[in-house]
Amino acid sequence: MNAAVNDLWLAMTSEAREYGRNEPVLASFYHASILNHANFADALSFHIASKVGCDSVPAMLIRDVFSEAFVSDPSIVNSAAMDIRAHFDRDPACDHYGMPFLYFKGFQAIQAYRIAHWLWTQNRESLALFLQNRIASVFDVDIHPAAVIGCGVMVDHATGLVIGETAVVGNNVSMLHSVTLGGCGSGPGPRHPHIRDGVLISAGAKVLGNIVVGEGAKIAAGSVVLNTVAPHATVAGVPAKQVGVLSVDLPALNMDQYINDDA
Amino acid sequence: MNAAVNDLWLAMTSEAREYGRNEPVLASFYHASILNHANFADALSFHIASKVGCDSVPAMLIRDVFSEAFVSDPSIVNSAAMDIRAHFDRDPACDHYGMPFLYFKGFQAIQAYRIAHWLWTQNRESLALFLQNRIASVFDVDIHPAAVIGCGVMVDHATGLVIGETAVVGNNVSMLHSVTLGGCGSGPGPRHPHIRDGVLISAGAKVLGNIVVGEGAKIAAGSVVLNTVAPHATVAGVPAKQVGVLSVDLPALNMDQYINDDA
Amino acid sequence: MNAAVNDLWLAMTSEAREYGRNEPVLASFYHASILNHANFADALSFHIASKVGCDSVPAMLIRDVFSEAFVSDPSIVNSAAMDIRAHFDRDPACDHYGMPFLYFKGFQAIQAYRIAHWLWTQNRESLALFLQNRIASVFDVDIHPAAVIGCGVMVDHATGLVIGETAVVGNNVSMLHSVTLGGCGSGPGPRHPHIRDGVLISAGAKVLGNIVVGEGAKIAAGSVVLNTVAPHATVAGVPAKQVGVLSVDLPALNMDQYINDDA
Amino acid sequence: MNAAVNDLWLAMTSEAREYGRNEPVLASFYHASILNHANFADALSFHIASKVGCDSVPAMLIRDVFSEAFVSDPSIVNSAAMDIRAHFDRDPACDHYGMPFLYFKGFQAIQAYRIAHWLWTQNRESLALFLQNRIASVFDVDIHPAAVIGCGVMVDHATGLVIGETAVVGNNVSMLHSVTLGGCGSGPGPRHPHIRDGVLISAGAKVLGNIVVGEGAKIAAGSVVLNTVAPHATVAGVPAKQVGVLSVDLPALNMDQYINDDA
Amino acid sequence: MNAAVNDLWLAMTSEAREYGRNEPVLASFYHASILNHANFADALSFHIASKVGCDSVPAMLIRDVFSEAFVSDPSIVNSAAMDIRAHFDRDPACDHYGMPFLYFKGFQAIQAYRIAHWLWTQNRESLALFLQNRIASVFDVDIHPAAVIGCGVMVDHATGLVIGETAVVGNNVSMLHSVTLGGCGSGPGPRHPHIRDGVLISAGAKVLGNIVVGEGAKIAAGSVVLNTVAPHATVAGVPAKQVGVLSVDLPALNMDQYINDDA
Amino acid sequence: MNAAVNDLWLAMTSEAREYGRNEPVLASFYHASILNHANFADALSFHIASKVGCDSVPAMLIRDVFSEAFVSDPSIVNSAAMDIRAHFDRDPACDHYGMPFLYFKGFQAIQAYRIAHWLWTQNRESLALFLQNRIASVFDVDIHPAAVIGCGVMVDHATGLVIGETAVVGNNVSMLHSVTLGGCGSGPGPRHPHIRDGVLISAGAKVLGNIVVGEGAKIAAGSVVLNTVAPHATVAGVPAKQVGVLSVDLPALNMDQYINDDA
Repeated sequence: MNAAVNDLWLAMTSEAREYGRNEPVLASFYHASILNHANFADALSFHIASKVGCDSVPAMLIRDVFSEAFVSDPSIVNSAAMDIRAHFDRDPACDHYGMPFLYFKGFQAIQAYRIAHWLWTQNRESLALFLQNRIASVFDVDIHPAAVIGCGVMVDHATGLVIGETAVVGNNVSMLHSVTLGGCGSGPGPRHPHIRDGVLISAGAKVLGNIVVGEGAKIAAGSVVLNTVAPHATVAGVPAKQVGVLSVDLPALNMDQYINDDA
Repeated sequence: MNAAVNDLWLAMTSEAREYGRNEPVLASFYHASILNHANFADALSFHIASKVGCDSVPAMLIRDVFSEAFVSDPSIVNSAAMDIRAHFDRDPACDHYGMPFLYFKGFQAIQAYRIAHWLWTQNRESLALFLQNRIASVFDVDIHPAAVIGCGVMVDHATGLVIGETAVVGNNVSMLHSVTLGGCGSGPGPRHPHIRDGVLISAGAKVLGNIVVGEGAKIAAGSVVLNTVAPHATVAGVPAKQVGVLSVDLPALNMDQYINDDA
Repeated sequence: MNAAVNDLWLAMTSEAREYGRNEPVLASFYHASILNHANFADALSFHIASKVGCDSVPAMLIRDVFSEAFVSDPSIVNSAAMDIRAHFDRDPACDHYGMPFLYFKGFQAIQAYRIAHWLWTQNRESLALFLQNRIASVFDVDIHPAAVIGCGVMVDHATGLVIGETAVVGNNVSMLHSVTLGGCGSGPGPRHPHIRDGVLISAGAKVLGNIVVGEGAKIAAGSVVLNTVAPHATVAGVPAKQVGVLSVDLPALNMDQYINDDA
Repeated sequence: MNAAVNDLWLAMTSEAREYGRNEPVLASFYHASILNHANFADALSFHIASKVGCDSVPAMLIRDVFSEAFVSDPSIVNSAAMDIRAHFDRDPACDHYGMPFLYFKGFQAIQAYRIAHWLWTQNRESLALFLQNRIASVFDVDIHPAAVIGCGVMVDHATGLVIGETAVVGNNVSMLHSVTLGGCGSGPGPRHPHIRDGVLISAGAKVLGNIVVGEGAKIAAGSVVLNTVAPHATVAGVPAKQVGVLSVDLPALNMDQYINDDA
Repeated sequence: MNAAVNDLWLAMTSEAREYGRNEPVLASFYHASILNHANFADALSFHIASKVGCDSVPAMLIRDVFSEAFVSDPSIVNSAAMDIRAHFDRDPACDHYGMPFLYFKGFQAIQAYRIAHWLWTQNRESLALFLQNRIASVFDVDIHPAAVIGCGVMVDHATGLVIGETAVVGNNVSMLHSVTLGGCGSGPGPRHPHIRDGVLISAGAKVLGNIVVGEGAKIAAGSVVLNTVAPHATVAGVPAKQVGVLSVDLPALNMDQYINDDA
Repeated sequence: MNAAVNDLWLAMTSEAREYGRNEPVLASFYHASILNHANFADALSFHIASKVGCDSVPAMLIRDVFSEAFVSDPSIVNSAAMDIRAHFDRDPACDHYGMPFLYFKGFQAIQAYRIAHWLWTQNRESLALFLQNRIASVFDVDIHPAAVIGCGVMVDHATGLVIGETAVVGNNVSMLHSVTLGGCGSGPGPRHPHIRDGVLISAGAKVLGNIVVGEGAKIAAGSVVLNTVAPHATVAGVPAKQVGVLSVDLPALNMDQYINDDA
């Protein structure tokens, strides 16, 4: 576990102790979800598995799959930690580290997707698809396990997010609920978008087809994007057109959904 | 309990008796949810708690929180009754009072939010956030417990509704599914919209930032609203522009989603 | 059972045997959901009932309702088979027949709706409404049981789909998630759209009011359609305008969400 | 279905309608368990399967096993009907036919055993053993699936009943809770008792080893029987000795647990 | 609530606070079961209802029945408090008041029986029988709801206890697991024992028929009692014979299962 | 893991593969319970935790307690393996190693007790008592966590077993269902029996008070033992008297419940 993960873990346990003291209804929930664990990875596998487990594949078994994935690819845990920090840094309503971990469907869905994706890379397509269905059922988020998603990703509110099979999402991207990274055509190659680092995709935007959204671009709420977007451009509308050039490097980091005159 | 609540309760119990006779599969469901209770408040706490309960915080415990809130602030029960009447009066598919109570995710989510909001005002943020998560998981509706929402509110279909931390919603407002009252900026003050009385917000509309939507305004489906809307104006488009002035006082009450030439 | 259903069933069981061998975590899931059954109808009633069952109305009882409906109207089973083929033929991410059956919320929601609709035609409105609520809770899809929907229908991703009481949907229609077939007005007659055969409605599109969308038309993502759409026309925008005429007969079949210059 | 089963079924449905009217809390329970079914066999498979189902093997799947067994060996259903009559005729506390069916662990355990036994005869030992464990967990009754048990059997109260692998129980036998038909020795042949028709085995009695308990014998409560018992004899004590000869033919039918002077 | 109940409640809450601090895994369990409630009666209805609730009749509904019974007959709550003190005073392994309340199947079964009995006296036989079945399933204790049981009763370990329809049990009685108060004969009058105050019935004893067990008598383990027992007598054996006269007034209070020479 | 445990594990996995192939209903059950695990200890913690988990303390959390105990005291795992061999060697109805592990309440209860006992030695009395209650609820076996139990222990059928706080049970002991190792008196010292190695205690026997049952003794079914039993003696009756001297060293190993003339 790297130092950043460890720092996060210390902060989360300190918060959980305080919250547990103040709200006895949740004391054991904080304990079971966070304080009972030796480290962030153990808590993560426990909590997310408890969400996606079901009668057919119980939580304990899914947790073993998580643990196996964490050993095979430790970057999954680091990415989860960076996703928590993304929420904390970018969402004004998120004032402690435990919030995304315990409560945010977007964070939880992404972490479960990371395991589904790892299963996909291990040629365990069946279980990956089963997990995709569980994520869609539990979090209302539909991410194909073959999609590639970076770290430091925030999906705020999350309900209705759809990310298709050949989509690629870079690092430090922010997406809101009801965003679609959808496909066009049915040929053998990529048919979904490639979202570069630091992009902000506002609520309800649909980005469709094998196009590139350049680094640090901003897609306004409700837009339908059918063409490549230049780096640091703001696009808006149905269909979306470029309406400005951003003065900030990475709009994902400040979550400004306005389309300013100079945006 | 005021007279209007009592009248509603009498109508609901009368309906439930009739429906229970006609559909024995649901006879005990009608009994447990409605007929078994002494009054509307008892039935409300029973039914909504049974929806949001979970392993970590069982329904019976949540029901006790509801009961505590109802004693502390009796207006919560009155608001619930007015919300039921809003559905009955405005939704042609709603032909008996039990429908929103028993079946409509939007009604149920709003009532659970009212308790989360009450917890927030009691400085029980942890349990309020836990409840917010349960509402988002069960009803696919994400309302920050700090948001302020009036009475006589209808949220039709509801899936995907998002209402942010500093949003204010007046009385007799109608919203459809996938509506967002979202934030812009990350400063300390309000960053979400203020929706005045009688506003109609059609399906999928996004209203973003610290703006006012004036009394009796209508926001067309799929619109993205980034600026203040005048009272009784109709706005439409991405981004939304004023396209008409309403001849009706409160468009929320007749649910006409058309953008008529004279709208 | 007709020959097409039988062929599908043979293909599904063959797949399930292979997948079960390769993924022992899911071996009994494949067995219980598919291999244990004598035919497609038995598997269908088992699997969908297991999804929509709940404490108040357990899965076994719902399954009996399914079986009763299948006997009363065998076309329900045939339609389900055609819906599976629609997913297989149109969705590049769907590479075996078991995928929609086992995993796709859209397919599962439509099959449960078919039973709710059958109940509605039998004057069992209460149970139909109960089932509508279960579908909305489990699949995040809200279809009024009185709506009429044809066969060969694909609802991809599905979260947020809303279809109103007087809507009519033809055969071989494709819809994506967050589509709304919504109502306008509150008079006694039809107030929802009539979607003709072969129409493609892209993600997030809202089609509102008692209008006709002609055979083989295409509605672009995020559009808001308030007026009749000509057969084989492509419409786009908020509000939607005709932007082209399609060269293909039935755009639903190739799922091309692009709005080409010649579309 | 023979006439006796049909008569029983008519009586049960008539009772259920009356009880459902009087106790709305249970109206749907009566409906789901009894009234919703076309015949006794359907109700039986529904109700017992709902008791023994679990996460690993859900009730609906177990019900299909029941149905398969009923088709393969219709005597299972007839035996169940005779067991209900045995309770009704012999137990003064049982004043309607639905009581054993709905509530008595002994009746329910025996019916589930009948299916486990049928599985055993079909060489499905694994599922038979799984079912044995479920019966032991749910009803606190441990019957080896290889044991052979007749019809018209009553097991009153039932908790703690143990019947071993090579035991044989005739028709019209009555046993109370905590009875053991246990094994002695570990050779290849029979090592458990053979209980002939009409025997009454009182509470807590242990009958051990490959011995015969003759027709119409009575074993007093708390006895430990290690030797063959003559027909119509009463035995009592630890170890049990003959203490009388019965004047009634079949003590199982009147359930007199006294050891009268002339018994 | 009388003073004794209040004192007990203060002791239980004080313990729960201490135990919750020391064992965070159970902190919320102590809170939900004890600390969250205003008084002993509220905690009692919450905790026992949470044990006996099921899919057909959920815990919240059963809790309402408990509350109704407590209002109708406040002695039920007082009896429960006296039962806790009985365990605390008599069972050396019970060193805090919360133990019987939280953990002991015998205590919990008796309290649930008290509600079933109250239902029986209200002519709600159906629900009383349903509850009897739940008690038998959950606690392995089968008490007919028509039986009459006093206060200050301890049932230690409890598994296998059976008490028949016309049995009467006095105050301050102690019974161990696998005790039967069983019936003989099938006439219309009483056919089960009458156990007077202060009796101790040791493990596995069977007391059968319409007989009286006199005040302060002791029944040795494994005995089968078929005849009236004199006050303060010790009986033992199969069948039981008087083996001594007790020097203590109420053997139930010291739980001495020995059969001393002078007993 | 020692060699004996490893050999057992290899045998269990080999069996599970074969059984899973033959009974697809249980294929994933065998996989999840046995084949999915790296070693016997992992499978043991998974399977027993899945049995005793509940809403208040979920299975995953209990599994972590098991794992912690296994690390702290590896003899717990070895004892479990020896208990399985005890069943396999002594119970003619047990013909493969997976049977006690997967299905036998006695084996499962003893393993859960071992964890409760470990918690007790770690001064975590609260969680130990909670676990005792879960064992009593799930397996109908009530073992005080302070009791001391050796290895190679078989508890056949198990329902109704009670073992008190100060009881000590040696190695290679066999007990049947409904056995009680009960207490007498309420002083501070030991008040329960001390059962030496190799003892066989037959069904329903009650052994009461601070007495010693000598090595290799046999207690007949239904006996009530109130005095010390000599090594290799057979005792029987209520109260039990010596009826013979055993020619075998350890009667627990051959499970002969007969009381032979020469026994």
